[in-house]
Amino acid sequence: MPGSVDLVMIVLPASEVIDELEKCAKLGVKVAVILSSGFAELGEEGAVQQSRLSEIGRAYGIRILGPNCLGVFNSSIGFFATFTAAFHHQSAVPGPLAIVSQSGACGGHLAYLCGQRGIGIHYWVTTGNEADIDVSESLLWLAQSPKVKVILVYAEAIRNGDLFVEALETARRNGKSVIMLKVGRSVAGARAAASHTGALAGEDAVYDAVLRQFGVWRAESVEEMLDVAYACLGNRFPASRRIGLVSASGGIGVQMADKAERLGMDVAVMPEAVQKKMKALIPFIAPANPVDVTAQVINDMSLFQQCLDLTLDRGNYDSVIVFLSSGPASAAMRDQLLSIFKPLRIRYPEQVIVLSMAAPRDTVEAFEKLGLIVFEDTDRALNAMAALAYFAESFGDTVSKEIDNASLPEKCEFPSVLNEHVAKSILANAGIHPWPEVLALDSDEVGRAAEHFARPVALKIVSPDIQHKTEVQGVALGLTSPADAAARASEMLNHVRKVRPDAKIEGFLVSPMRGDALEISCGSFRDPVFGPVVMFGLGGIFVEVLKDVAFRRAPFDEAEAHRLIDSIRGRSMLDGVRGGAAVNLQSVARTLAALSKFAYVNREQVSEIDINPLSAASDGAYALDALIVRG
Amino acid sequence: MPGSVDLVMIVLPASEVIDELEKCAKLGVKVAVILSSGFAELGEEGAVQQSRLSEIGRAYGIRILGPNCLGVFNSSIGFFATFTAAFHHQSAVPGPLAIVSQSGACGGHLAYLCGQRGIGIHYWVTTGNEADIDVSESLLWLAQSPKVKVILVYAEAIRNGDLFVEALETARRNGKSVIMLKVGRSVAGARAAASHTGALAGEDAVYDAVLRQFGVWRAESVEEMLDVAYACLGNRFPASRRIGLVSASGGIGVQMADKAERLGMDVAVMPEAVQKKMKALIPFIAPANPVDVTAQVINDMSLFQQCLDLTLDRGNYDSVIVFLSSGPASAAMRDQLLSIFKPLRIRYPEQVIVLSMAAPRDTVEAFEKLGLIVFEDTDRALNAMAALAYFAESFGDTVSKEIDNASLPEKCEFPSVLNEHVAKSILANAGIHPWPEVLALDSDEVGRAAEHFARPVALKIVSPDIQHKTEVQGVALGLTSPADAAARASEMLNHVRKVRPDAKIEGFLVSPMRGDALEISCGSFRDPVFGPVVMFGLGGIFVEVLKDVAFRRAPFDEAEAHRLIDSIRGRSMLDGVRGGAAVNLQSVARTLAALSKFAYVNREQVSEIDINPLSAASDGAYALDALIVRG
Repeated sequence: MPGSVDLVMIVLPASEVIDELEKCAKLGVKVAVILSSGFAELGEEGAVQQSRLSEIGRAYGIRILGPNCLGVFNSSIGFFATFTAAFHHQSAVPGPLAIVSQSGACGGHLAYLCGQRGIGIHYWVTTGNEADIDVSESLLWLAQSPKVKVILVYAEAIRNGDLFVEALETARRNGKSVIMLKVGRSVAGARAAASHTGALAGEDAVYDAVLRQFGVWRAESVEEMLDVAYACLGNRFPASRRIGLVSASGGIGVQMADKAERLGMDVAVMPEAVQKKMKALIPFIAPANPVDVTAQVINDMSLFQQCLDLTLDRGNYDSVIVFLSSGPASAAMRDQLLSIFKPLRIRYPEQVIVLSMAAPRDTVEAFEKLGLIVFEDTDRALNAMAALAYFAESFGDTVSKEIDNASLPEKCEFPSVLNEHVAKSILANAGIHPWPEVLALDSDEVGRAAEHFARPVALKIVSPDIQHKTEVQGVALGLTSPADAAARASEMLNHVRKVRPDAKIEGFLVSPMRGDALEISCGSFRDPVFGPVVMFGLGGIFVEVLKDVAFRRAPFDEAEAHRLIDSIRGRSMLDGVRGGAAVNLQSVARTLAALSKFAYVNREQVSEIDINPLSAASDGAYALDALIVRG
Repeated sequence: MPGSVDLVMIVLPASEVIDELEKCAKLGVKVAVILSSGFAELGEEGAVQQSRLSEIGRAYGIRILGPNCLGVFNSSIGFFATFTAAFHHQSAVPGPLAIVSQSGACGGHLAYLCGQRGIGIHYWVTTGNEADIDVSESLLWLAQSPKVKVILVYAEAIRNGDLFVEALETARRNGKSVIMLKVGRSVAGARAAASHTGALAGEDAVYDAVLRQFGVWRAESVEEMLDVAYACLGNRFPASRRIGLVSASGGIGVQMADKAERLGMDVAVMPEAVQKKMKALIPFIAPANPVDVTAQVINDMSLFQQCLDLTLDRGNYDSVIVFLSSGPASAAMRDQLLSIFKPLRIRYPEQVIVLSMAAPRDTVEAFEKLGLIVFEDTDRALNAMAALAYFAESFGDTVSKEIDNASLPEKCEFPSVLNEHVAKSILANAGIHPWPEVLALDSDEVGRAAEHFARPVALKIVSPDIQHKTEVQGVALGLTSPADAAARASEMLNHVRKVRPDAKIEGFLVSPMRGDALEISCGSFRDPVFGPVVMFGLGGIFVEVLKDVAFRRAPFDEAEAHRLIDSIRGRSMLDGVRGGAAVNLQSVARTLAALSKFAYVNREQVSEIDINPLSAASDGAYALDALIVRG
């Protein structure tokens, strides 16, 4: 039957898989789903066996899912190439949700929980060891499918960063929410991941930055994945973060407001006129937002209905959470509440309305059928709402994630000598301003150079072999005269020659002293998954002690650079401290964008760039030191 | 029927409550539960009415619960003085849990959720506006009850800090877990709390510090309160943070390990010998911890049983979480797992064993009956486990929370003049070392004083009217000779007289320059709820920009001071930066403890103390500047 088989499932002991795959490939089978384990997850020998599978795939054009996966399904056509136990207990109902998971067990667990919550899954893919088809390719395919609105991704490591980012951008353009659980943050976690998948986990901070940069909601737990997916399936995303919080319990109102603010939502005050109207309805109401309608509404539900109507109609909120406690658990109250919310949902079709209630499953479903989102816990309701607001911002983000090629610099031809002075000139050419300096080859030249600058001047030794100049006394500051500068240069040279006889000395850098300025530490490095990544932080203790740094995948433009700047904890330092002037943010952003483009264009030749410090003040940002590492 | 009525419930309009209470009081009624609202929660006028209630209570000895509360119950004797709707749907089963809530609606909601989860409530108290009986008094009573093991507290503001702390210490001594939801963190939240209870909310950071200091688990959500309460009701607390994580899904194992580390649990590696034994059982196992038993155990459950036995017997873990996914949802698997866990629970009675599974309620209950704790989500299981470890540490904490009176200094008699120099002498007397300095009354004396010190010296103006000396050029550093110092003193005096003609000048302080040292900012203030509280942070940007400060209620001893020091983000600065020497931590701790005792003893006369900077290096910690504010 050559050519007539679309797909085979291989469920043999590992030792028999290679031969079987080759047989199938020769017969023209298009896809092999290999459930067998015993490959790269076991170590080197297994990895060799697995690379044989990949080779066969490439040689014959047979696509491979797995090995060590649990298969794939498309519930809309009843295609189940899996032996997951997740559907033993309930059948999958198709819905606009897709799941991609490297781990078969996690994929099965997610599917089971979706079933329990009444969430239908359309596509389900487990990629296992990814000898061929990986998470990124699956995600890209799903991001293009008109059947899919929400995608859950479970991954321990991404193999193809470029494809992954392309998939995320496709999803974002198509208005699809991607919710990801990326494990392997901790030391103990990373240890287990290595033995589980045989994949190198990228630095977690880089994952975190890239996921945020490209609009993924990174969930902390399986439960959070499902919460957010459920809310996204409501297919309403709030146009702003302004949220109205309504409750008959003042305490829960406060609790909701606390959480909302911590999540970055805007618990904006109800307009005065509306507050007045509410007070006319319910004298003891606290109408500011959170709105505490008080227990009085239990006696007269029409008051509750009117307050909700006012909140939705005139509160200027794009999302509203109403806490109903266990009220709907009583049949009479349930029916009253259903008759209140049904017309409200129709009258206000745009706003996201979430109910928080503790009630039996069938009662919850009755409210869901009206188009309302229901959570038992207010914290989980608010977290899901924050995710909806995040997706709304991401879908509407006008900051281009893809850089126009025309804005990129030319590839650099690197000279054989790449000391600090040369590195700065190269970076200057890419748009990164160097602080004025002159290269002096000997102490006489140092003296002459000092005459050209306003005094005092600074002096540094130049050597490709010395990375930490202060450690060899290779830096002198505040030199008040040319003679002083020249004398210090001689001393410096003698000392450095003594302590580092091996080091090639290429001269001195002479420059005027920089006045009061903020020290920034920035640079780029080549991440094994995502390629060149730009790091940004403040100098000194901010980086060294507090590890207050942020990352962005290169290249990016100035608007994105501003976000990078805004994402450090010490951000307010840039606004000036103790009455000092603010830093010129535009210059810093321009520098970071330029750095990102330079690092990107030259990614094959440059492994690392350090600009430390970039000295920023109100007059601009200047590279005081720079290092380019080839490789 | 005078004298024969123990309790009345008053459910009248607010306007009729005072008369009715007085009538009851005169008849000798012992307790009045006032459900009526319309008092302090409405503002000033209502507060006046409410203080009338308090007066009647004091005058006649009638105890009052409320107003604006939902009452009280003791389910074990069938006493329900409440109209909460929480029990319309299910009856309360007594259990060793108590609930105290200021908000009636929250109290009712908590009770309903307990019912849903099968958690029985013994005592339930809602205190409302607290005209008399408050959260603290209720808590103290519950902390002494042998019927109670776990106490849930919901509060928006504590009125009596001393009583509250006494209640917490009683609970801790008696091994009772206190889990609290304290709302009012955010701006929007605080706004609503003010209109809801009419109580001034203390600064949230102080609450946070006090709750931690006295062993309360502060829950972030209602759901978390119930999760932790449920776990505590298992009545097993792990002796250490060493946790074993077992799963048939490598991915979930990694996820659990990540979360465990973020929660401060110790995912310690399985002993080598045990790993070897496990590998002999299951060749593809990842036995390090998290333990991935692989899908092979599904085919041979005895392997699973043996691995669990090894983990519990020889892993040296005090808690173990086993992830079972949706396995137990199938009847056959459920029965196999029950027969595995039943003997394990008996054989290892000490360890906390938590199962994570998605299964129907009756299946979960079957496992719970064996003495196992069951959570669906692994994150929630781990969070509850971290709470158990926290309580174990708190119950076993040997650092005394109560200070021996003998260790307290005498109350201070304050002089009428309280400038920097005097403040330092007073604090020196309390054990806070001042940096050497001499008070000089004029510039001549400054010159002579400078002769006594190693040069260079520092100079500061002394005036009770000038708080920020640098702003008036009232500080000069690095003066290299006595003549220089005298000349600068004259200049300084002239300048200060010009810019602050109003300021009384009391002289100059002359001192040797302090070498390289770390600047610490510490002090105390009188919190409206908890009395004197000590603040600790590092100087400069750490406090000003990063708000990296921590608090402790005074008084406390050195061991507690070390914990205070350890709780800031920039803690590693004290270990020395860039090869610098570490700070003498003992001196810093001694200073903080001394400060706390001084602030406590003089709490009625001193509203604020500032030691900024406390200059700390390897040679000790010295107050370079000090301010005591009376009042």
